[in-house]
Amino acid sequence: MEEIYIIRGNIIFTKTFGKFEVFENGYIVVEGKYIKGVYKDLPKNFGKVPIIDYGNSLIIPGFVDLHLHASQYGNIGLGIDKELMPWLQEYTFPEEAKYDDINYAKKVYSALIKDLWRFGTTRACVFATIHKESTKLLMDLFAQSGLSAYVGKVNMNRNSPEYLVEDTENSIYDTEQILQEYSTKYELVKPIITPRFVPSCSMELLKGLGNLAKKYNTPIQSHLCENYDEVSFVKKLHPEFKNYARVYEGAGLFGDLPTIMAHCILVDEDEIELMKRKNVFVAHSPHSNCNLSSGIAPVRRFIEKGIAVGLGSDISAGHSLSIANVIVSSGQVANLKWLESSKVDKPFNTAELFYMATKGGGKFFGKVGSFEEGYEFDALVIDDNSLPIFKPLSIEERLQKFIYTGDDRNIKERYVAGKKVKEPECY
Amino acid sequence: MEEIYIIRGNIIFTKTFGKFEVFENGYIVVEGKYIKGVYKDLPKNFGKVPIIDYGNSLIIPGFVDLHLHASQYGNIGLGIDKELMPWLQEYTFPEEAKYDDINYAKKVYSALIKDLWRFGTTRACVFATIHKESTKLLMDLFAQSGLSAYVGKVNMNRNSPEYLVEDTENSIYDTEQILQEYSTKYELVKPIITPRFVPSCSMELLKGLGNLAKKYNTPIQSHLCENYDEVSFVKKLHPEFKNYARVYEGAGLFGDLPTIMAHCILVDEDEIELMKRKNVFVAHSPHSNCNLSSGIAPVRRFIEKGIAVGLGSDISAGHSLSIANVIVSSGQVANLKWLESSKVDKPFNTAELFYMATKGGGKFFGKVGSFEEGYEFDALVIDDNSLPIFKPLSIEERLQKFIYTGDDRNIKERYVAGKKVKEPECY
Repeated sequence: MEEIYIIRGNIIFTKTFGKFEVFENGYIVVEGKYIKGVYKDLPKNFGKVPIIDYGNSLIIPGFVDLHLHASQYGNIGLGIDKELMPWLQEYTFPEEAKYDDINYAKKVYSALIKDLWRFGTTRACVFATIHKESTKLLMDLFAQSGLSAYVGKVNMNRNSPEYLVEDTENSIYDTEQILQEYSTKYELVKPIITPRFVPSCSMELLKGLGNLAKKYNTPIQSHLCENYDEVSFVKKLHPEFKNYARVYEGAGLFGDLPTIMAHCILVDEDEIELMKRKNVFVAHSPHSNCNLSSGIAPVRRFIEKGIAVGLGSDISAGHSLSIANVIVSSGQVANLKWLESSKVDKPFNTAELFYMATKGGGKFFGKVGSFEEGYEFDALVIDDNSLPIFKPLSIEERLQKFIYTGDDRNIKERYVAGKKVKEPECY
Repeated sequence: MEEIYIIRGNIIFTKTFGKFEVFENGYIVVEGKYIKGVYKDLPKNFGKVPIIDYGNSLIIPGFVDLHLHASQYGNIGLGIDKELMPWLQEYTFPEEAKYDDINYAKKVYSALIKDLWRFGTTRACVFATIHKESTKLLMDLFAQSGLSAYVGKVNMNRNSPEYLVEDTENSIYDTEQILQEYSTKYELVKPIITPRFVPSCSMELLKGLGNLAKKYNTPIQSHLCENYDEVSFVKKLHPEFKNYARVYEGAGLFGDLPTIMAHCILVDEDEIELMKRKNVFVAHSPHSNCNLSSGIAPVRRFIEKGIAVGLGSDISAGHSLSIANVIVSSGQVANLKWLESSKVDKPFNTAELFYMATKGGGKFFGKVGSFEEGYEFDALVIDDNSLPIFKPLSIEERLQKFIYTGDDRNIKERYVAGKKVKEPECY
């Protein structure tokens, strides 16, 4: 028998894109990992089930971060006024090299996980580094914490600093070892195939990874069309392909298995069609895109095409782990995109942005990111007593106020897959 | 004899645009309100002066907020996904109407001042409402708090909801009463002439205010060229003037006395020349400009022309009182402007942005916003122990990390004009 309990509070979530479902003083019945139902009035047959009453607090789905570089956490907030290339050379690559040292990895990775917890991220898709041992450690640390994650050992065998270039065979071998050991080791933490991006992976490596994805039924994450220089470089490297996305596709890394592509700012029509047809997820990372002068992704067009979009913090090109903060930024850049597109690409309202931050990215994990029957119960309990509120607000307005003016201090509890998650240990 | 004391810590500030001055484990000697000197090694003649030692903390100038609407604080974080007009009609105007009630004003204004203190804003240029009594109260509350502010009773006599439209004569009369009573009442809190903007002020009213500015030697603040509809409306209202700025100029409200204009997104060449010639300050408010889909101001061009630029939170069109947060946003929109301008308008580095947030806006208050001899001593003591730091960082990097990843919890002390400021009372 699975444990059954009831959460009571002001429940708000987005079942469909752009529409809040609100259960003021409502009830969520949870059995084991899953939601049995959400109710305005509690049905009689649950009369004997214990109730955890969060009073006037908001109950919202946990935040999903579809794209971040765990190994860049030490650099968060640094070098952001550099351009992409000096930023990579001076800050990012030297930092990633340190993950050869498992002790350094333990210190920074555990601090990162604690901060993800702090900011209410319950699910994350994470880039580690090329290093097998510290990547495995990151998965173990996530599993210990109770948070859920896809974690990728990064692959790179060209156009990178010597100290980060792998031998092709070893890169594939190390990746396969992780897949063998970790594909079924944990329920909430799984490996994900993670070629850094086309510029740093030869076609031989990409194809090797495509084969592993098929063999182990493993999802895929990478970067696509983030900036002009990158896209031109890929064109030069692979004139045999029509565009950037087609290179991944040619290697079996574009939606043959569930795939996330970060950024997608400069995608062309063919790429958008391919993303749609192959059900590729977009990890929209506006803070990163602004900090690195990359531009604004055509998110409204993706949404209109029916392409799945989730949000990503993309630290440390993004400077904030808070997905609430990424929601704000996503709204802002969409407003600017509306101007840029001569008012064709409509801005997003809060319910649309909130959907991306929860169910939009959550879909990549299965039934995650919403309070519907059969969904895994991931939730945050929000106490907004400290926020500047001077009149009665609706539940929607309280959520908006939390997103725009609140912070980690307002998050009182986190649940992942039906379990309350305590503050993770830091080493 | 003025009190004299010494502050010790890791001192960092921007004397010139874009260049940090750093005194690691340095000393600031303060006498009365003013800085006598900043030293790497303390000169012998100060040997007997008491030292306040902040150890490894950073000592930075206080933040200056050149543009915010105090009366919109109750709405912070609300309705931000609305467009300008519904936002004004549904949220802003009804909220401002409440300031007819002095008790409501006391509650919200004192909470605002406490939050300005919390986020390290030591100087602010503030819009109140049309209401004389609550505007006076706001000045009294600022004076009590120890923070410094220019506070403006708002003037509006047309194109606004009936309940916010003033009679022209009364509008001028009430403003003059405030100027008579408050121009010399406080040292750190002063009145400022505040026509809301041209659309809501007739030329008769504007000219009346221009006369008051001259008569009482009072500075001026208003809005300029925030969005397309507004600019077109002003063209329609005043075909007799070349552009929006010339309307203010025609009324004696454009730099005849020290003047701040918020936004300045859509200014034309003539307006830029006029801003330069009349030493008009720009209050750059990127959060607001993104939230309301207004666009990105050509700040690099202003800087190159030698126009003074400070930062503004512009709550509640802006959603954050934190000027550190506005620095981040200013960097981001400048990066996007760089793309938008085909890489003509260069992005800003952290030292440039920090200058705008301190000395850039501080100049409006006199010798404020820097740690130079003769400057008023406004400072924040920053403890960054809680931030994710895993290697030795330079003082510049620590400041950057605080700006991008820190928050009010890292601000341990605030000084304004030589005095330590305690947490203000909240009613």
